Amino acid sequence: MTRAAVLGAGSWGTAFAKVLVDAGNDVTLWARRDELATRINAEHRNEDYLPGVELPAELVATHDPVAAVRDADLVAIAIPSQTLRENLAVWAADLPADATLVSLMKGVELGSTKRMSEVIVEVAGVPADRVAVVSGPNLALEIAQRHPTATVVACADDTRAIEVQKLCGTPYFRPYTNTDVIGCELGGAVKNVIALACGIAQGMRFGDNTLASIITRGLAETARLGERLGADPVTFAGLAGLGDLVATCNSPLSRNRSFGERLGRGESLDQAQEATHGQVAEGVKSCRGVLELARHHDIDVPITAAVEAVCFRGLTPAQMLELLMSRSMKSES
Amino acid sequence: MTRAAVLGAGSWGTAFAKVLVDAGNDVTLWARRDELATRINAEHRNEDYLPGVELPAELVATHDPVAAVRDADLVAIAIPSQTLRENLAVWAADLPADATLVSLMKGVELGSTKRMSEVIVEVAGVPADRVAVVSGPNLALEIAQRHPTATVVACADDTRAIEVQKLCGTPYFRPYTNTDVIGCELGGAVKNVIALACGIAQGMRFGDNTLASIITRGLAETARLGERLGADPVTFAGLAGLGDLVATCNSPLSRNRSFGERLGRGESLDQAQEATHGQVAEGVKSCRGVLELARHHDIDVPITAAVEAVCFRGLTPAQMLELLMSRSMKSES
Repeated sequence: MTRAAVLGAGSWGTAFAKVLVDAGNDVTLWARRDELATRINAEHRNEDYLPGVELPAELVATHDPVAAVRDADLVAIAIPSQTLRENLAVWAADLPADATLVSLMKGVELGSTKRMSEVIVEVAGVPADRVAVVSGPNLALEIAQRHPTATVVACADDTRAIEVQKLCGTPYFRPYTNTDVIGCELGGAVKNVIALACGIAQGMRFGDNTLASIITRGLAETARLGERLGADPVTFAGLAGLGDLVATCNSPLSRNRSFGERLGRGESLDQAQEATHGQVAEGVKSCRGVLELARHHDIDVPITAAVEAVCFRGLTPAQMLELLMSRSMKSES
Repeated sequence: MTRAAVLGAGSWGTAFAKVLVDAGNDVTLWARRDELATRINAEHRNEDYLPGVELPAELVATHDPVAAVRDADLVAIAIPSQTLRENLAVWAADLPADATLVSLMKGVELGSTKRMSEVIVEVAGVPADRVAVVSGPNLALEIAQRHPTATVVACADDTRAIEVQKLCGTPYFRPYTNTDVIGCELGGAVKNVIALACGIAQGMRFGDNTLASIITRGLAETARLGERLGADPVTFAGLAGLGDLVATCNSPLSRNRSFGERLGRGESLDQAQEATHGQVAEGVKSCRGVLELARHHDIDVPITAAVEAVCFRGLTPAQMLELLMSRSMKSES
C-alpha cells in the first residue's frame, strides 16, 4: 500500500484525497484548521467544501503537516496559489527525500509570474522531474460524487507520470499522462480569464455561439502564448486545456462565470465584489499577470486584454464585444 | 454590389442569406416550396425555421433555381446532405461559370462516404479550389438574432477564401480563413456523434466534468481520424472543430443532445424515435459512416464505436461509460 499525503483540505484537496483512497492508497489529509481535521475524522464529511459527500472512513485528517507527510511516497499540494511559497518554506525540510510532489493548484504567482510547479521546485529544492501536475475537467464536487471524468498527469519524467497515473486511477477517474508540464499549468491559469469573458457574454444575454467562439479563440490565444513559453500547442486541445476550460465555462458552480455575468449585466468591479461578499473571481486576479506575461513575450491576447480592460480600465462589456468582433479579418491559425 | 444566391431556405440557409444581406450583397434565396418563397417575400419572415426573426426587406426569395443563381458570384448551398447529389445534378448546368460555390452543409454522403464539398466538385464538375466551406459555432437562430459569433471560411484557394470572408463578414459574424477544407468538413460531420455521446451522459445525470471529458476525447479521436485523411490536426482545435462541437453540445436547441438524453435515460432507439415523431438525430445516422471510415483507415475511435453500439448493438449507456473509463491507461496524445 502506498502512503500518500494531501496538503490542503479545501474542495479539490479533499476530493483528490478521496480519489487516492478509492484507488487503494493509505492517505492522510492535512487541514490548516485543527477543528476541521477533527471534524473530518469524527464525521467523515467536509461539509463546507463538499456538501453532502460521505468521505471514506479510511481517510485520516490531521492538523500536523509533519505527521501528514511522514513516509509518504506521494505528496499532493492543494492550497491557495498565492500562499504556496510561504507554506512550502515551512514544510520543505520534512518532505520525504524521494516523494513525488504533485501540484493540484492553478494560477501564476503574482510578482514572479512563476507557475506553481516552478515555485515548488524552487522552494522545496527538488529537481523539476520530481514534480507532477494533475489538471483537467475536474470540478471537485462532481469527482467526490464519482461522476466519470478524465484528467492529465503531467511530469517531465514520463516514468514518474505513469506511477502517479497508476496511483490515482479509479473506475470514475481516468488519468492520461503527458510530459508537457508548462502547457498543462498554463491552461489551468488562463482558463479563469476566458471563463470570465464567457460570463461577461452570458451576462449580456448572448447565446451558445458567442460562448463557443470565445472558448475557441481564448484557447487559440492561450496556445500562442504557451508555444512561446515552450509548451506543446497540442496540449491546449487536450484535457488540461480545452477540457478544463469547457467544464469551467459550463458549470453553474464556477465563480468566474457568475462573477463575469455580473460585469456583463453592467455592474462595476466594486459592485460585483460587494455582491459576492468581497470575493473576487480568480480570473480578475489572473488577467493582469497573464497580460503582463503576454506583453513581455510580444504575444497578442485580445480576449485577455479585453477582460483586463473591463475589470480595470472602464471598458464596457458592449465595447468589449465590439472590439473583439471588429478586429481586422484574419486567418484562423 | 455582389450578387449572391443561397439554395435552401431552412434555418441555416435563411440565416446565412440574412448575413449576406447585412454584409451588403444583393441576395436571392431559393426555397423548395413555392408557397414558402411567396410567404418570405410577402411577410419578410420564415416562421417555421427562424421563429420571431424579421428578415431584411431586400432579401428576395424564389422557387426558381435558375433565377436564383443567375449572374451570381457566390452560390451557397444549404440543403439536406443526403439530397445534395440529386438536386445539384439538376442545377449544375445553370451555375455561373466563375461563381464560388459555398457549402453550408454538414455530414458525409452515405454509401460513398464523401464529404459535401467532394460531392459538389464531382456533380458540378468544378475544380476543388472553387468550392468553399463555411463552418463554425453557428446555431442559425442565434445568428439571425445577431448574437456575435466567429466562423471559418475554408477553401483550398486562399485568395478565394479571403473573398468569401469579405463578402460575409458583418459586425456580428466574424469569419476567419483556413485552407484545410477536409478538417473543417470532418469536424462538422463527427460533432453530431460526439454530441449524441454527451446527450447520453447527460441523460445518465452526469455533470460537467463528464461532458467536458467526452468533448475533449471526442475531439482527439476526430483529429486522429482527420490527420489520417489529410487534415491538419490543429483545425480540430479551432472554430469548425472545437467551436462547433461546444456550441452543439451546450445548446438546448440541439436535437443530438436531446435525442442522446433519451437514450441515456434508458429508452431504446425505437422508443426515442417514436417520442421525437420519427425524427432520428443526425448523429445516429452519422455514427455508422464515421465508424466505417475509421475502421477502413485503422483508426481507434472509442467514443464513436460506443455510440454506434448503444444505437445498434444493444450496449447499455452504463456499459458504454464503463467501457470508455476502463480502457487501458494511456498517454494523452
